[in-house]
Amino acid sequence: MAKSQALESNMDVDYVLTYRFAKTDKATAAAKFERLVEALASVGLDTEVRNGDNHSVLLFVRVASDEHLFGEVYRSRVNDWIHGVRAAAPQKETRESLEAEPLYEAERLRIIYQLITHPKSEGGAGITPKEGEWEEVEAVFALHDHDYNKDWIKKWTSQYILKTEDLDEIRNRLGEKVAFYFAFTQSYFTFLIFPAAFGLSSWLLLGHFSPIYGFVSAIWCTVFTEWWKHQEVELGVRWGVRGVSKMETKRRDFKHEKEITDPITGEKVLMFPSTKRLQRQLLQVPFAIGAAVMLGALIATCFGIEVFISEVYNGPFKSILVFLPTGIATVFMPILTSIFTDFATRLTKYENYETHGAYETALTQKIFVMNTITSYLPIFLTAFVYVPFGTVIVPYLDVFSLTVKPFAEDEKQMQTSHAGFSINPGRLRKQVIYFTVTAQIVNLGMELIVPYLKRQGFAKYKEMQSERAAKNGGAPASPTTSDPPEDAAFLQRVRKEAELGVYDVTTDLREMVLQFGYLSLFSVVWPLTAVSFIINDWLELRADAIKICVEMQRPIPWRADTIGPWLDSLSFLTWLGSLTTSALVYMFSNDGLGPSGHPKNLTGWALLLTVLLSEHIFFLARWGIRVGISKLASPGLEKERRERYLVRKQYFEENLSQMQRIPKMADKGVEISRESLEEDARRSSLKTSSPEERFWERQRGWRETVQVGRSLIERAEGGNSTEGKKDL
Amino acid sequence: MAKSQALESNMDVDYVLTYRFAKTDKATAAAKFERLVEALASVGLDTEVRNGDNHSVLLFVRVASDEHLFGEVYRSRVNDWIHGVRAAAPQKETRESLEAEPLYEAERLRIIYQLITHPKSEGGAGITPKEGEWEEVEAVFALHDHDYNKDWIKKWTSQYILKTEDLDEIRNRLGEKVAFYFAFTQSYFTFLIFPAAFGLSSWLLLGHFSPIYGFVSAIWCTVFTEWWKHQEVELGVRWGVRGVSKMETKRRDFKHEKEITDPITGEKVLMFPSTKRLQRQLLQVPFAIGAAVMLGALIATCFGIEVFISEVYNGPFKSILVFLPTGIATVFMPILTSIFTDFATRLTKYENYETHGAYETALTQKIFVMNTITSYLPIFLTAFVYVPFGTVIVPYLDVFSLTVKPFAEDEKQMQTSHAGFSINPGRLRKQVIYFTVTAQIVNLGMELIVPYLKRQGFAKYKEMQSERAAKNGGAPASPTTSDPPEDAAFLQRVRKEAELGVYDVTTDLREMVLQFGYLSLFSVVWPLTAVSFIINDWLELRADAIKICVEMQRPIPWRADTIGPWLDSLSFLTWLGSLTTSALVYMFSNDGLGPSGHPKNLTGWALLLTVLLSEHIFFLARWGIRVGISKLASPGLEKERRERYLVRKQYFEENLSQMQRIPKMADKGVEISRESLEEDARRSSLKTSSPEERFWERQRGWRETVQVGRSLIERAEGGNSTEGKKDL
Repeated sequence: MAKSQALESNMDVDYVLTYRFAKTDKATAAAKFERLVEALASVGLDTEVRNGDNHSVLLFVRVASDEHLFGEVYRSRVNDWIHGVRAAAPQKETRESLEAEPLYEAERLRIIYQLITHPKSEGGAGITPKEGEWEEVEAVFALHDHDYNKDWIKKWTSQYILKTEDLDEIRNRLGEKVAFYFAFTQSYFTFLIFPAAFGLSSWLLLGHFSPIYGFVSAIWCTVFTEWWKHQEVELGVRWGVRGVSKMETKRRDFKHEKEITDPITGEKVLMFPSTKRLQRQLLQVPFAIGAAVMLGALIATCFGIEVFISEVYNGPFKSILVFLPTGIATVFMPILTSIFTDFATRLTKYENYETHGAYETALTQKIFVMNTITSYLPIFLTAFVYVPFGTVIVPYLDVFSLTVKPFAEDEKQMQTSHAGFSINPGRLRKQVIYFTVTAQIVNLGMELIVPYLKRQGFAKYKEMQSERAAKNGGAPASPTTSDPPEDAAFLQRVRKEAELGVYDVTTDLREMVLQFGYLSLFSVVWPLTAVSFIINDWLELRADAIKICVEMQRPIPWRADTIGPWLDSLSFLTWLGSLTTSALVYMFSNDGLGPSGHPKNLTGWALLLTVLLSEHIFFLARWGIRVGISKLASPGLEKERRERYLVRKQYFEENLSQMQRIPKMADKGVEISRESLEEDARRSSLKTSSPEERFWERQRGWRETVQVGRSLIERAEGGNSTEGKKDL
Repeated sequence: MAKSQALESNMDVDYVLTYRFAKTDKATAAAKFERLVEALASVGLDTEVRNGDNHSVLLFVRVASDEHLFGEVYRSRVNDWIHGVRAAAPQKETRESLEAEPLYEAERLRIIYQLITHPKSEGGAGITPKEGEWEEVEAVFALHDHDYNKDWIKKWTSQYILKTEDLDEIRNRLGEKVAFYFAFTQSYFTFLIFPAAFGLSSWLLLGHFSPIYGFVSAIWCTVFTEWWKHQEVELGVRWGVRGVSKMETKRRDFKHEKEITDPITGEKVLMFPSTKRLQRQLLQVPFAIGAAVMLGALIATCFGIEVFISEVYNGPFKSILVFLPTGIATVFMPILTSIFTDFATRLTKYENYETHGAYETALTQKIFVMNTITSYLPIFLTAFVYVPFGTVIVPYLDVFSLTVKPFAEDEKQMQTSHAGFSINPGRLRKQVIYFTVTAQIVNLGMELIVPYLKRQGFAKYKEMQSERAAKNGGAPASPTTSDPPEDAAFLQRVRKEAELGVYDVTTDLREMVLQFGYLSLFSVVWPLTAVSFIINDWLELRADAIKICVEMQRPIPWRADTIGPWLDSLSFLTWLGSLTTSALVYMFSNDGLGPSGHPKNLTGWALLLTVLLSEHIFFLARWGIRVGISKLASPGLEKERRERYLVRKQYFEENLSQMQRIPKMADKGVEISRESLEEDARRSSLKTSSPEERFWERQRGWRETVQVGRSLIERAEGGNSTEGKKDL
């Protein structure tokens, strides 16, 4: 079998499980392996085992028969319908239902993944990779579709703008969650065109800190945020996933305190008192303060050292020493961040949420707080501490003279010059440019190059290891020797994919949201920000596609109907932007020197007033934009409404057809004639009946009512009301 | 039949229609009457006609048979289910369904009312009182249940606090819309206990304009508003009406511009372009400005005259003349208000809303704007114009000297004294007391006494009229002479009820919301406000009950799941309260004389800053309160959730039971034995099969996978990986 073919065919494999038994003794490993295979077989999966890398085997899995799969698909669709994701119940004949609405690849893979991982009580095999009983199952992953990947990358790199169909294709292959990320980035990219153009002209014509640019930029950020909310709904309907985020999956780690038997449903409900959770959530306050203080201290220290070296220090190696704080930050920031991320994860676990959704939201919020501090604090320090208070603070930066002591030639080089210190007005702009250009490029590079180098190094290392083993006379440790020759190429490919990382879409989303933050918060400092971002994001979209195809295992195609808690972050950043932009405009309106030519003339109350008024304008504008966007035609919602209407109508008709309809009124009216008068006589003899009966018996049938009514109407005028009294 | 009995029995009458033909010629009136009776009979209603007051007849209506009614009830319940108001579809056997969930009186009356008024296409008789074809149908009303009314009033007047069961009783009798008003007023009343107690102690200990009182009061207002939102949901679930407000009823007056055939549903949809509506809605801006200017001018004029007379004028009749502006306001305010209300109604009609809900909301908003101006502007003028700018403005009030010229003895009496004018710090408090005590009492009196006097006067007038007619020798015009003696008392009662007004719950709701506004906006001026309100509201709740029972026709029992747009007004007033309270505290913190002992020292920016900061504290507090209240246990939502769960579960089980389940895996595994080796040989001959087939055929069944896996695991360590290669 030629290598090119091996790349093309996935051998009908749906999923590969890596079973690693390095830390388990062989007997247990073998017994557990048996349980694993049995569990998979019990839910209708075919299995094949092959040798893996050292101390691991690869377990290949596919659905045994189409009937099994169709059953699961039907189950999943019925479940969707019950949770309101679908308007109508799927047809009862599975095959017909599938013909009406064919299975797409992501759906298929998701359903099989759920079959493997769902607990037994929900009809799955209950395999939980890396957890509990299944610690040895290192990974469950699908194989890349190399043909499609090649096409995808080729198409994207030769195309400027992505169409909705391109996003549909991603959704069909990689699932809605990943597709939502690409849709968001694509929308953001398209929206960036305007601020890039406006920013460029404003940079040329209006200069920095232009209030006009600030206002337009704030409005644009709001429009984008609100429009994306609208777009999320549209995409959700288009992809048939609206409401999916409300289908809550229980967390396995949830620890209950009480078990209550629900009096109505009779089910056992696991409870965790919400007051207790609230108490635990209160720990977020010290956590946030701690993170803010520690990260803030690190950033402030680096900032202080940097200011000291660049503005005060006057000795040798200045041009090199200036990178010292960056070095400190590069070393310590990741350490601190990972400590706090770990802490945040523990804290969120301790908060003991019942559902995955709640857990994710709580974790994202904590991480967002940390990211906000690390991303924006440096610029905040420059804008709101260094500039207004620089002349006061800088002389105290002598404490950082320690850092340069070994290099300084005399004490004078480390003291503020007697002529007095004056702040460097270009610092803020330089910093913004650093964060919006340099840092973005570095980031993009890191994302693509570092994993590549890592993989190359790892391959090299393994090669060397096996060479050494060969030299030492041992049999080569490589598992490839035991491969059947015809599968060798395929298995080699699978082993490589098994070594790849797991793609986490939230990291990429976070990156985009943080980038949006720079635009919203600080672009008034340097209006070209959006120009830099638009170039960066064009590359980013493609780089992410390549990353998914080459650097990562094929992602599990989860569903989503939103970008989740990041949407709140977006709103938050837009709001914060209305504050910072107005503050910056006020403070630097005379190109960095305050409204009256000198930053000293800033008054606190005027700044506060500017900020608060601008915030109110923002609230007003946001309300207007929301109203405007809600009036936009929404074909998605229209479609949903119509579908639901049709379903309702059908139910209604089905139900009412079985109901007895009101029979057409019996024509009970009788002409007033001799007979009816006789009847009157008979009636008056029936005095034994109740007053109610007598009241209603005076006029039999509607025709009599009409006749009596007519006579009443005719006699109304003229006072001849004594006539005809009897026939009432 | 004794009179007491006549009061008790409603003769099984469900509704009474007043058919007045004074303005129609007799032939047309008779023909229309026939059509009316026929239409009613065609939907299964029994009819009886009796003479009414001059130029009218009373048409009594009841459901002909229980089967008719049950059919309609079932229809209505299925419709509820389809719109998501009910979790489960009602049972198909109507009788069973009714036994499981008995009909309550309000439901019965509502369904019959809908039977009378719904268009023919929806299965009703299409009677539209006072409109179009049915102009002669003056009113459709149900008869009071005098027994229940007597009990109700007796119970309420002897009870301090109303229980939820009392509200349930109202809901069962008068429908959810009226019940929601009583529930709201009752909740508000209960919540008032705290600010009344706190206000009293703060009045004794802290004095006026206490920042502590202001803060607590603002928090309380927010808690109440947010808590009521929570309570609405609870009551909605309790009364089974949650989601009812989303069931939109089309407006008959809606004029479409286009008729589009929906491509999916195939239904004809009447369209009115929303851009055109938006253009028409823009007329609200001149309307609001016009109303504000005109009403504001009237109020400002009265205010100016009042200030002039009380503070400048020094001549005779001062004590009487001081009431002149009140007189002007009393005469012109109702005229202006009714003109603008009429205008608002026309404007809302012109805006051409498709549904009743949208129409009501738009109208309520306009009326709320007007009410806000008339209710709060006088106090605003005092607080924010008179006090800070009084010394500047008052000398110019000479223009109002015209009003007192006839009474003044010399010019001096109408000029500001030379010693200079000083503002009257007690004016603001007096005004607040006037609006929160005097005006409330007057209002309550007007509600009860004026209609009583009106009825008495009308009865007297009719008596006189018939006396005069008798004197003139004509036959008495009274219709009672044609009554059958046994029904006479009953008919007399019905004629009286026909003359009563129609109860409009929104008027009462508006009154409460406006009262809440005084508390939220100005209670910091006079902390006893809540004490006055608590007394007033205890009476108000009872007075409203009496009003409904005695002064008004029995209300049509509409459903509702909210107090509607007034909820937004409540939120608005709470927000505005956070601004006014802080402004008042800042301006009058030294008991009416500004922070530095003199109102002149007020600075605009400090005031603005106070207000804006306090607003932010309010936003923060509101967010906290919302989070807190959302954590409250919600038995209603719990119940709803459970019900929906049960329904889902049932559907799920019904659907999946029909699905073919995955058969337990066939035990395809074969022991590795001689036979299997032979099989291997056979297999290798099958080289014609595809690589995929060959890949999956290496291990037949899960047992073989396990065996191969075991051997792979065992051979992993030690490098003896060359063994057993063949059986892979």
